[in-house]
Amino acid sequence: MNEYGQKETMSNKVLDRFFHPKSIAVIGASESIYSYGTRYIQALLDFGYRGKIFAVNHKGEKTLGYKIYRSLDEIKDTIDLAFITIPARFIADILKECIAKDIKTAVAFTAGFSETGAEGRGLEKELLKTIDGRLRLMGPNCFGPYCPGGGITVVTGADFSKEPGEVALIAQTGQLSECIIARAQGEGIRYSKSASYGNAVDINEADLIDYLMDDKDTRIITQYLEGVRDGRRFFDIARRNFGKKPHLIWKVGLTQMGASASSSHTGSLAGTGAAWDAFFQQTGAIKVSTLDELTDTTVAFHHLPKGCGLRVGYISGGGAGTVLGADACENAGMRMPAFTEQTEKRLAELLPGVGLSFRNPVDVGHPHPPKELMQSLFETMSADRNIDLIVVRRILFSVKMSKIFSGSTAPSEKEQQELLEVPVKVMRKYNKPIIIILPDDMTGAESIYLEEERRKIRDFFFAKGIPVFMSEQRAFTALSHLSKFKLKNSACKAADKKIPAPLSGSKTRRIFQDLLKKSTASIPDEIQCKKVLKSAGIKVTLPVRAVSKNQAIAVADKMGYPVVMKIVSPQITHKSDFGGVRLKLENKKQVGTAYNEIMAAVRKMAPKARINGVSIQKMAAPGLELVMGMTRDPQFGPILMFGLGGTSVEILGDVAFRMTPLTRKDAKEMIQQIKGYPLLEGYRGQPPVDIPYIEDMLMKISAFAEENPEIKEMDINPILAYKKGAVAVDARIILDEKMT
Amino acid sequence: MNEYGQKETMSNKVLDRFFHPKSIAVIGASESIYSYGTRYIQALLDFGYRGKIFAVNHKGEKTLGYKIYRSLDEIKDTIDLAFITIPARFIADILKECIAKDIKTAVAFTAGFSETGAEGRGLEKELLKTIDGRLRLMGPNCFGPYCPGGGITVVTGADFSKEPGEVALIAQTGQLSECIIARAQGEGIRYSKSASYGNAVDINEADLIDYLMDDKDTRIITQYLEGVRDGRRFFDIARRNFGKKPHLIWKVGLTQMGASASSSHTGSLAGTGAAWDAFFQQTGAIKVSTLDELTDTTVAFHHLPKGCGLRVGYISGGGAGTVLGADACENAGMRMPAFTEQTEKRLAELLPGVGLSFRNPVDVGHPHPPKELMQSLFETMSADRNIDLIVVRRILFSVKMSKIFSGSTAPSEKEQQELLEVPVKVMRKYNKPIIIILPDDMTGAESIYLEEERRKIRDFFFAKGIPVFMSEQRAFTALSHLSKFKLKNSACKAADKKIPAPLSGSKTRRIFQDLLKKSTASIPDEIQCKKVLKSAGIKVTLPVRAVSKNQAIAVADKMGYPVVMKIVSPQITHKSDFGGVRLKLENKKQVGTAYNEIMAAVRKMAPKARINGVSIQKMAAPGLELVMGMTRDPQFGPILMFGLGGTSVEILGDVAFRMTPLTRKDAKEMIQQIKGYPLLEGYRGQPPVDIPYIEDMLMKISAFAEENPEIKEMDINPILAYKKGAVAVDARIILDEKMT
Repeated sequence: MNEYGQKETMSNKVLDRFFHPKSIAVIGASESIYSYGTRYIQALLDFGYRGKIFAVNHKGEKTLGYKIYRSLDEIKDTIDLAFITIPARFIADILKECIAKDIKTAVAFTAGFSETGAEGRGLEKELLKTIDGRLRLMGPNCFGPYCPGGGITVVTGADFSKEPGEVALIAQTGQLSECIIARAQGEGIRYSKSASYGNAVDINEADLIDYLMDDKDTRIITQYLEGVRDGRRFFDIARRNFGKKPHLIWKVGLTQMGASASSSHTGSLAGTGAAWDAFFQQTGAIKVSTLDELTDTTVAFHHLPKGCGLRVGYISGGGAGTVLGADACENAGMRMPAFTEQTEKRLAELLPGVGLSFRNPVDVGHPHPPKELMQSLFETMSADRNIDLIVVRRILFSVKMSKIFSGSTAPSEKEQQELLEVPVKVMRKYNKPIIIILPDDMTGAESIYLEEERRKIRDFFFAKGIPVFMSEQRAFTALSHLSKFKLKNSACKAADKKIPAPLSGSKTRRIFQDLLKKSTASIPDEIQCKKVLKSAGIKVTLPVRAVSKNQAIAVADKMGYPVVMKIVSPQITHKSDFGGVRLKLENKKQVGTAYNEIMAAVRKMAPKARINGVSIQKMAAPGLELVMGMTRDPQFGPILMFGLGGTSVEILGDVAFRMTPLTRKDAKEMIQQIKGYPLLEGYRGQPPVDIPYIEDMLMKISAFAEENPEIKEMDINPILAYKKGAVAVDARIILDEKMT
Repeated sequence: MNEYGQKETMSNKVLDRFFHPKSIAVIGASESIYSYGTRYIQALLDFGYRGKIFAVNHKGEKTLGYKIYRSLDEIKDTIDLAFITIPARFIADILKECIAKDIKTAVAFTAGFSETGAEGRGLEKELLKTIDGRLRLMGPNCFGPYCPGGGITVVTGADFSKEPGEVALIAQTGQLSECIIARAQGEGIRYSKSASYGNAVDINEADLIDYLMDDKDTRIITQYLEGVRDGRRFFDIARRNFGKKPHLIWKVGLTQMGASASSSHTGSLAGTGAAWDAFFQQTGAIKVSTLDELTDTTVAFHHLPKGCGLRVGYISGGGAGTVLGADACENAGMRMPAFTEQTEKRLAELLPGVGLSFRNPVDVGHPHPPKELMQSLFETMSADRNIDLIVVRRILFSVKMSKIFSGSTAPSEKEQQELLEVPVKVMRKYNKPIIIILPDDMTGAESIYLEEERRKIRDFFFAKGIPVFMSEQRAFTALSHLSKFKLKNSACKAADKKIPAPLSGSKTRRIFQDLLKKSTASIPDEIQCKKVLKSAGIKVTLPVRAVSKNQAIAVADKMGYPVVMKIVSPQITHKSDFGGVRLKLENKKQVGTAYNEIMAAVRKMAPKARINGVSIQKMAAPGLELVMGMTRDPQFGPILMFGLGGTSVEILGDVAFRMTPLTRKDAKEMIQQIKGYPLLEGYRGQPPVDIPYIEDMLMKISAFAEENPEIKEMDINPILAYKKGAVAVDARIILDEKMT
C-alpha cells in the first residue's frame, strides 16, 4: 500500500499525470531550436499548455525564454512529468534523478533501443531495472501523450485540435498516431487523449487499455497495434470489459511479411492469426484493417452515440446507385428489408414517375429532388418500424456539382441551402439516424473548388451529428461495425459470458503432477495421457496394458468386444506405420492372432525398439469424428482448437480457435463457427450429435490446460460424438521440456 | 453481304459512327433550354463539336440559333447519328423515319421502357421489330457516346476532357459512367471513347466489347456492368481475346440484394456468382469491386503501359509504414523479396543510422530524407535484379505538410522542389516503375490548402508517368492487377488455351436423341444415363437389368463379384430411402437374398410403385470420390462443376465452375482451384490420382453438354478416381422439359 491505495488504482491515478501534468521538465531542451526538447517546448507553447515548463540540459543558458537547469535537483517546484529527449545511453541515469526528485511519470522520446538490436535491448533492461516500479515510464522511442483537456500535445502536434472529445487513441508508433489524429480531425472527430507508447518497456497496451476502459472522458477507444508486450493481460482486460466501450483495433503485422517487418521495428512479436481471431471473437473488440476503415468506423461511433440497427432504408438519386448500395450493404452484413405496406403506399404517392423504385432501395430518379420530396421521403422512412437507419447517396447537396452536371436546369443556391437543412430537421424530429454519402467525384487539381465545397457540406453535417462517408462501401463497412456492436452485447446470456474461475490444486492436478514425475519422454504414452484426461472429466476409451498374449486375451475378454490393440513402445509414436495397430478384434482368437502379428511386425520393422507390451481398449462405436487441440501462443498463452476430423482440419483448415479460459459462449460459438457445423446438427438423415456435451468437453479441456502450465500442446483426435455423449479415442499430450 | 462486307465488319464500322458522327440530328430539341434535346445541343457546342447539328421537333422555330425541322425528311444533308429525346411511345415511329432517311445509327436517350415494367417491355419489342437489323440502336434509357476524338460528349458532359486518351469505358448506366469519367479525369486518365448503352435493346455489351477489342484507339477497356443481355456471346468474345487488352470489369449485382435491385433497374438479370467466377477465370478479364478499385487499376494500367512484375522494393519514411506496406503487399498477392547482397551492402552504407532497416522493406527513419539519399536509394533499388518496381510511402513531397509536422526543421521549398524531380529522373534512367503513395492526411475544410498542394504534386507525377495512390492498400491492389495481367498471359501454353471446336452429329448425339425419344420421364434411369455417357467416352459401371432372381444371379455371375444391386422403378429416384440398394454382394447366395429383400422392402414402402426389376453393376474398387456436374446458367449456358465427393461439396462448398467449352487450361485450373486439391496429388500415403485422365473426363463432359442442349442438369456423383483412370459409379441427367 502506498499513498494511492492498492496497486491498480495507483497505476490508473498515476497514468492520469501523463495526460494532465501541472508541470513538465523537458530533459534535453537546448539552445538550438532544432533539438527535439526545444521543439517539444515550442509545440507545448503553440498548443497553449498552461502548466509550468522547465528546460534541463548539461549546457546552455536559455531556450525560448526559459532558463536551462543543469539538473532536476536545481528545480525547486514539484515536477509531474519528465519528458526525456537525451541520447539513449544517458537515460537510465536521468531516471534515477527523476526518482530521487519523486517524479512519478516520465516519457522517453529517444529512439535507439530494442528496435536497433541486442545492445538496445540491453539498455531497455537497464531502464526497467532502474525504475523498479517507482516510476511509470512511457517509451522509449515514442511521441508520448496528447490531451486537449490537459493542454499537452506531441512534438509534431502543435496544430492538433485543442478541442477535447470522447475518442482515445493508443498506438505504438508516433508517426502513425500523428496521421490517424490528423485524418480523424478532418472528419469531425475530437480526442480525449492519445498515447504513442513506443517500445513499451514499462507502460504497455494492457496498462493503457485498463486505464481507458475506466476513463470517464473516453467513450470510444481506438488503437493501432503491431504486437503486444503483455498479450495475456491485454486479453484479460479487454475481455473483462466486453461491450463496455467500443474498442477499435487496427491490427497490423498479421501477414507473414508484415510480422517480420514489425519485429524489426518495435522489437515486439506480432501475434499469430489464430490467436488474434480468437482475441476479437472473445473480447468483442472491433477489428479494422485500414486507416480508412479506422477513420470511418470512428466517425460512425462518434457521430451516432446511440448506435443503430442493421436494417437500412436507402435512397439513391439514380438507379445504378441502388445496385451499388444493395451490394455494399449485403457485403457488410447489413440488410435492406421491405418497407411496411403503409410506407410503400406513401412512397408510391410521393414518387409517381415511371421507372422509379418505391421499394427499398428507393430510386428517386435524379440527383435534384425538391426539398419537399426529400423531407417527405425522410419522414416516411423514419416512421417505418422496419427501418433502423437511412442512407442517402447521389443527392447533390453541392451547388457547384449541380451546375456542372445539370447546367441551367440545376436548382438555385437558395434551394440547395434549404435542402441541406432537411435531413438535420427530420433526424431531430424522429431520432432515427440519417447517413449521407458524399463522394469526391472529381479529384483533379483544377477541381479543388469542388472538393472545398464538398468538405464544407460534410463538415456542416458532421456538426449536426450526421455521419458522412466517401462511398457506399466505406459507409456500410463502418455502419455494420456500429450496428453489430450494439447487437453483440444483447445477443448472449450473461451466464454464458461468465469467465470461469481458475482451478487450483484439483485432483487432476495431482494426477498430472504424478505423471510429470514418472514420465521420461516429452510425450507420455496413450495410457498416461488418457488417464489424466479422464480425471479431468473427459470420457476416454481407456487402454489397459498387457505384456503377454494370454494377458491380452484376458483383458479383452473382461473389457468386451470389439477391441483395438496397439503396440506400447517409447520409441514408436506413429504406431500404424510399424504394423502396430489392429482394429475391430471380435473374439479371443482374433486377439491372440493380432498379438502375434503385431509383435512380429514391430520386431521386424523396429528391431531396436523397447517393447512394453500392447494396449487394449474397447473399440468405440462409429460416430461423428471431432478434433480438439491445444497449443500455447507465445503472446497469449493456451489456445484451444475445435474442428471436424479427417481432411476438414488438415486440408481445408476448417477449424476455430479460442483462448482459455473458455466461457460457455466461447464454447458455443467456436463450435458454430466451423463451416462443417451442419454435420453436428444432423445432416442427410444422420442424427444430430450432443452439442451441449461437446461444449462441456471444451470447457473441461480449457480448465485442464489452464491448471497445468507444463502442457505445451495437446491433440485429442479423434473424438467420436454421438446422439448422447462423446468419447476421446486417441490423445497426445506434449510436455514443455523447459518446465518438466 | 451489303455495302460494308460481311456482318461483323459491317457492325464494327457502323459502330464507329456513334463515336465519330459528321452530322447529328437531335430529335426532341425544343425552344426550351430545359429540354434534354436542347441541353444536348448546348453540351455539344460547349464541348466543341465540329460536325453539323440539326434540331428536329414537331413544334418551335429556333433553338440555340438552329432552325427546328419538322421531320428528318426536311433535312437535305446526310445524317450520321440520330439522338432521340422524345417520349418513349413515339420512338418507334421516329426510327422508321431514320431508316427511311438511311440513318445507320441512333441513340435513344429517353427512359420509360423495360425498367418500368410490362408496358415498357412491350415498347422495347416494338423498337427491335422496327429496326430489324437496318439500323443500330444504342439505348433506350442511356446517355450514349462520349468521344473526345470525335468531338462528342453526353448531355451532362460539357466539362469532360477534350483530350483523347487510350482508355475506353462501357456502362449500362449513364449516371455511373459520368461519375467514373469525372473521377478518372482527376487521376490523369483520358478516354478514347465511352458508351452508356442503357437497356441494350439492340447494341449490348457483346457488340461493344467486340468493337473495342479491335479498336486501334483503345488500349485499356473498362466496364461497369449490372447484368448481361447476351452473356454467351459476351463470354465468347472476351475469351477469344484473352490477354489482348486489359479488360477491367466493375461487376455489381453479385449479391442477392444487389441482383434484385439490378433487375428492377435495367430489366436485365444479373448473373449468378458461380458463372461470373468462371467468366473471370476463363476470359482473363479483371474483376474490380469498387469505384476506387476501378479508378486505381485504370491508373496503374494507364500510367505504366509496359506493366510490371510482382516483386516490390519498398521505401518508407518511418518504421510503421514498413509494417503497413508489407501487410498490404502480401494481402494483394505481391512480394517484397530480399535485395541482392550488393544492394544490401550499398544500403547499409547509405543508411548508417541505428534502427533503420536496409533490408526490404526499407525504413529511412523520417519523412524528410535529403534528395541525394533518395536518389541513391532509388538508383540502388532500380539496379537490383530482384526488384520489379519501387513503392514509396510517407516521404513528404509537400512543402506545407512538412511545415506542419516539422516546423522550423522542415526542408526549404527549393529542397522540396528538387526532391520531386528525383523519382522522375531515376525512372527515366533505369526504366523501372516507381510508384508514390500520397495520402490526404488532413481532410478538414480548413486544411483544403493541403489537399490543393497534394493534388498538384500528384498531377505533377501523373504527367511524368509516375502513378500515385491514396494508400498502401489501394496501391497494391491496383498494382497486383497490373502485374498479374502480365504474368497470366505468359503462364499457360498456347495449346492448352485452344478452344475446342463444337461437336455436331456425333455417335453420342444419335444415342442421346434415341434416349430422348424413348424416355418418358424428365430424368432417364441410371442405365440410360450411363449408356449415353459411355458413348461420350466416360468410363462407367454399366448396370444390367434383371427382372427375376435367377436372372439377377446369372447377370452377376457373368459380371464378376462384388456387385451392387438397385431397384429399377420410374417412381423411385432416391432408391436407398426405400431399401432399394444393396452394396458389395460377393456371391450367388448374397445376390439371391438381396433380390428378395429389395423386393420385399420396396413393395412394403412403396406399394404403388411400378417395379421394372433390379439393376446389377460391378462394384467399383474404392478410390478418391469426385463429383462432376453441369447446369445451365440462364445467361451463359452450360456451366460445369468439379469437386470432391462427400461433405466437401455440399457443406463446405469446395467446388470450381467453368463455362463450356472447356479448354485444357480450364480443366487443369478448375481441378487445381479446389481447396481439397492436395488429396488428388496424394496425401498421407495415399497414391495420387490420374489427374490428366480427370481433365479428359471434364473436357468430354463439356463437349457432351455442348452438343446436347436438351440436357438441363447433370450430376455424375460419385466418380471414383484411381492411380490410373477413373469410373463414374452413379449419374443423373435431367432433361429440359421445354425441349423434349
